[in-house]
Amino acid sequence: MPAIEETGGDLSSLSNDVLLIYFPYLDSTGFVERVTKRFKGLEVRWIKSNASPLVPPRAEDLDAKDWDGVTLLATFMPPPAEFLSKVRYVQLTTAGIDRWPVHSTYQDEKVTFATSNGVHATQIAEWVIGAWLMHQHAFLNYAANMKTGTWQSPFTAKVQDSTGMRIGILGYGAIGRQCARLAKTLSMEVYAYTRSERATSESRKDDSYCIPGTGDPDGLLPTKWFHGSAKGDVDSFLAQDLDLLVISLPLTSETRHILSHEQFEILSKKKTFVANIARGGHINQDALIKALETDQIRGAALDVTDPEPLPSDHPLWKAPNLIITPHISWKTDALYGRLLDLLELNLERLASGQQPINVVNRQLHY
Amino acid sequence: MPAIEETGGDLSSLSNDVLLIYFPYLDSTGFVERVTKRFKGLEVRWIKSNASPLVPPRAEDLDAKDWDGVTLLATFMPPPAEFLSKVRYVQLTTAGIDRWPVHSTYQDEKVTFATSNGVHATQIAEWVIGAWLMHQHAFLNYAANMKTGTWQSPFTAKVQDSTGMRIGILGYGAIGRQCARLAKTLSMEVYAYTRSERATSESRKDDSYCIPGTGDPDGLLPTKWFHGSAKGDVDSFLAQDLDLLVISLPLTSETRHILSHEQFEILSKKKTFVANIARGGHINQDALIKALETDQIRGAALDVTDPEPLPSDHPLWKAPNLIITPHISWKTDALYGRLLDLLELNLERLASGQQPINVVNRQLHY
Repeated sequence: MPAIEETGGDLSSLSNDVLLIYFPYLDSTGFVERVTKRFKGLEVRWIKSNASPLVPPRAEDLDAKDWDGVTLLATFMPPPAEFLSKVRYVQLTTAGIDRWPVHSTYQDEKVTFATSNGVHATQIAEWVIGAWLMHQHAFLNYAANMKTGTWQSPFTAKVQDSTGMRIGILGYGAIGRQCARLAKTLSMEVYAYTRSERATSESRKDDSYCIPGTGDPDGLLPTKWFHGSAKGDVDSFLAQDLDLLVISLPLTSETRHILSHEQFEILSKKKTFVANIARGGHINQDALIKALETDQIRGAALDVTDPEPLPSDHPLWKAPNLIITPHISWKTDALYGRLLDLLELNLERLASGQQPINVVNRQLHY
Repeated sequence: MPAIEETGGDLSSLSNDVLLIYFPYLDSTGFVERVTKRFKGLEVRWIKSNASPLVPPRAEDLDAKDWDGVTLLATFMPPPAEFLSKVRYVQLTTAGIDRWPVHSTYQDEKVTFATSNGVHATQIAEWVIGAWLMHQHAFLNYAANMKTGTWQSPFTAKVQDSTGMRIGILGYGAIGRQCARLAKTLSMEVYAYTRSERATSESRKDDSYCIPGTGDPDGLLPTKWFHGSAKGDVDSFLAQDLDLLVISLPLTSETRHILSHEQFEILSKKKTFVANIARGGHINQDALIKALETDQIRGAALDVTDPEPLPSDHPLWKAPNLIITPHISWKTDALYGRLLDLLELNLERLASGQQPINVVNRQLHY
């Protein structure tokens, strides 16, 4: 993906467009001015939430007149369809589209949808590798020892560093590629899994939004590539003696419960550590609890559960060797800056008649 | 550092030597056979501990006849000097030599000492970056929430990913260089501090033991280099708006309490996270406790304390935003394999009349 450059040109083909930005709170100063100047005639509106600055705008925050004539929309949650009758382009702030399939605007294939794929890669990969290192170096054990002032003999510690270990990445998109980059620097071997075959160097490229110097846009890091859309294909991948498995694929009917009893059985050979930063529905949680309780896997880290919020009496909270975080791995102070970079890049592409980056494939739903 | 290659040559100049390996338990199979075959006439003895396999050999495990005629020694702890009268070369399994200065064998400058500098780099750098990511992504907070089944609203989470942040490495040796490599992959900017000036590309190189593909043997990663041996020089470095400070230098009289009240004051500007994997004596712990309690710094991670073990009633255990581990960051199952690699490489060098790698400078004590 090319970096955004200030071309300085008069991109006037958005002169009949109205862009509405419907984010949780963010200081709009600078962006609106710059974009209005770059794209002559483009009207930009920014709806801020009346709720807490950090909570997304709610339906009751909407004012119908703000939506008059809106053709371009950047949004966190799906707004009521009645407001979107003139919309031709929707820039999502999420990497997944699973809140949208039932929405009539999404069902209208004339409306272009683009995800924010790529803006979450660095922070989520940090979450994955942070959770992995925390497990491998037993930090939670030592944090617990601190409460009692216990200096555990260093000679009892059993640690394996990552050098020479193997990471398997189920879904080699923007997030998976940044996980690969970090893992490679830890001297791990990278195995990649994608739905469609990536036999050629061209097919291994990824054109998602990518911060320069991050990820693996050319697909050069994996030692081996695997592919398929059937359970059996995935199972063959899981059998590759993985030390760390990252689930970073979209949730579709094909990928629901992609890890269940049978798969944890496969992973038990290497006691694979499982990190899920995609959607809770990818994992059969009963099977995960059993796998953790019976030591089939060495541990797991979940940023997503099913349902969310996870009820306080859910047995998953008590499973051993597990860290759960409340769907926060995507968070970073830098997020909205990256979203605005992406939005501006896609406005450029719309203005010059190019396909925006991260366009959603309506057959695959990602 | 060149990788060890099996030259196959007959390295016979150690034919009058006796090598004694005095490690905690490790399976000696393979190494002794190979080395005995490579270095014709070299006698290799391996003392195993009678204590737990993971505890170092104790003085009472020693049998005087095992030490007869020993000229080359690989050891974890300093053995009684009476056994070392013929020793000409000591391969330490530690990166620091602070247990040795009072030892008469060390005081004899005709005996060559080599540290194990480099064999700890990958695991310790993982520990540093793991502790950093754990802090930045608030994993300990979420681990605590699990006990009560609390799903904290994702909208309250405040996270900064590492992209664009700055790491300062106080002591740019083998460990510091691998920290730099990992941090660079997190898109951090690297600032390096060394005792002596490193103005030329030649002087920036490091010839410690280094696993291929790790570290920064050519010194290419830092954006800026700092140097000096005076407090004021260090203070200038600490004033460089560091997000993460790694202490990875030897403990000497110059570096004792290199971080004290005044230095935490300097770090308070950026609320630098401090990771110490060197020696407890580098930090004035009263000053650290105050810095953590008054929020001068965002947090700290200590693998070393003063004293060790840290007494169970020591106030450091209760300081906020701190993780303490019991001097274990050097641990990895792969450690002894690396030590044996290094030992074999140095036997090659001794056999061919070259200077071993990691030779201790008796003036600087590292």
